[in-house]
Amino acid sequence: MAVTNKYIAIKNFINGVPKDSDFELKTESLSLSLEPVPSFLVIVKTLYLSIDPSQLNRMKEYSSSQKAISFATRINPGEVIDSIGVGRVVASNQTEFVKGFSGLTAYGGFFEVCKPKKGERVFVSTAAGSVGNLVGQYAKLSGCFVVGCTGTDQKVELLKEKLGFDDAFNYKKEPDLKLALKRYFPDGIDIYFDNVGGEMLEAVVENMNVQGRIAACGAISEYANTRNKKVSLSLIDIIYKRIIIQGFLTPDLMNMSEDFISATSAHICAGKIHVLEDVSFGLESVPTAFIGIFRGDNIGKKIVKISD
Amino acid sequence: MAVTNKYIAIKNFINGVPKDSDFELKTESLSLSLEPVPSFLVIVKTLYLSIDPSQLNRMKEYSSSQKAISFATRINPGEVIDSIGVGRVVASNQTEFVKGFSGLTAYGGFFEVCKPKKGERVFVSTAAGSVGNLVGQYAKLSGCFVVGCTGTDQKVELLKEKLGFDDAFNYKKEPDLKLALKRYFPDGIDIYFDNVGGEMLEAVVENMNVQGRIAACGAISEYANTRNKKVSLSLIDIIYKRIIIQGFLTPDLMNMSEDFISATSAHICAGKIHVLEDVSFGLESVPTAFIGIFRGDNIGKKIVKISD
Repeated sequence: MAVTNKYIAIKNFINGVPKDSDFELKTESLSLSLEPVPSFLVIVKTLYLSIDPSQLNRMKEYSSSQKAISFATRINPGEVIDSIGVGRVVASNQTEFVKGFSGLTAYGGFFEVCKPKKGERVFVSTAAGSVGNLVGQYAKLSGCFVVGCTGTDQKVELLKEKLGFDDAFNYKKEPDLKLALKRYFPDGIDIYFDNVGGEMLEAVVENMNVQGRIAACGAISEYANTRNKKVSLSLIDIIYKRIIIQGFLTPDLMNMSEDFISATSAHICAGKIHVLEDVSFGLESVPTAFIGIFRGDNIGKKIVKISD
Repeated sequence: MAVTNKYIAIKNFINGVPKDSDFELKTESLSLSLEPVPSFLVIVKTLYLSIDPSQLNRMKEYSSSQKAISFATRINPGEVIDSIGVGRVVASNQTEFVKGFSGLTAYGGFFEVCKPKKGERVFVSTAAGSVGNLVGQYAKLSGCFVVGCTGTDQKVELLKEKLGFDDAFNYKKEPDLKLALKRYFPDGIDIYFDNVGGEMLEAVVENMNVQGRIAACGAISEYANTRNKKVSLSLIDIIYKRIIIQGFLTPDLMNMSEDFISATSAHICAGKIHVLEDVSFGLESVPTAFIGIFRGDNIGKKIVKISD
């Protein structure tokens, strides 16, 4: 069967913050077939696409870290951009197929990397984002004290009123992040779930307690950075306070996905976890949705609905 | 019994590299007594003193990391400087007394923090220093590939010829540390035992393999730094390569001291571990010995013999 497939491509490699003119809508003809049979073939109609800031790292001409790491392979101009999403299986020559994943980053990163204990003090950045809002909710369910930071007053309210964070603040209104953290954590921070890197991470290290743990989940401050600015850390703090900084990626946490799904769905059904989704409509809205993530436009998980 | 005790004190807080004029020899009268009896009292004659670069962190007027960390309390000008050493018990009102420790930093840091596996590629900085030389020897005994860096050609030879390192280099002769590490580790670094911080750590992160581990043991490049320069790390590397950076201090590893002593003494007796000691004589030589550590004068563990 021959079909026409629409997709979004980059027109050029992206250096810095992405903008509309970096993207284009393209069409291609596809011949759909389930032959040859010994191969595992499945035809999927895309219903939803996940919009993830880390995709920007794949759109750069060069990044040392992307070499030899298969799931961070470079996207070239004009190529189809692969992404996580939800699809309907239209046809398959086998009965089993791979499941997608979502929310596992927050679950696995928090429980496996941060190893929370009841009563510990947890700080989450981009706390109204797709991962951060769930980390905060898991932390509350674990008996921790949780403060989140985000970029608008509206999102601060959401964190405190709807998601049950103990406190939250708008980092754009804080001239001195170190002092802000000292105010929100007079007894120091035990766990930091880091989605941004940069100055916030530097301020956290200064306010961290002995035996503190930092889950390095994202570094959105570096993704769109043209000046190759890196985070400046005090090793003396890291050594004397015996801090652990651990980078992680969700594919390493796949062994936790059953736990994640059973625990999370039970909490959702019991009304103890709120799901925040921020939906745009139509493939054409993908570039705007993607660009918006770097401005902090989204509240919760950004997805694009492609078809019913 | 009244005695006269000699000690070295700082004359002022130290900012930057220590120099002779920062120190002075002082004398005091002490009244030695084993009363009152319910207290645990012991009188010790000092035979050897350990010279450790981390003491410099206690001689600064201000350091955020030193607050509330008991074994990094500030040393004030004129005060007796407490230190690790070896002493003879002259008198005691109890039969047990606390043992000192040495070498545990290398043993515990390598096995507990780095968790080495046979065949892994290990890099050690200040590899001819008190901790580094032992880390390299433990790594060889664990079946790892080991490269060390140090500051003189003489020490490079020592590492390769006497201590059995697979390779070693003089970092002062390498204009580009990233390229040097690429040359010595064409297949990347799995474990880095860091005693220096700074540019070397930045170069290691770039050359690190997926799931790499960094034991942050020392940061001699920061201790004597007046410009408050910090290490600049690529969080994208840390996340995509799932690197763990872990600060640690020897007092946290005390539970490993029995293992350390039995394993190490057996290896020393069997001639499989060489002990490197660099001895100066007399209390008066303490400032020179201490200052020399920051110039890389010492080969192996720097100690000062005080009395026979």
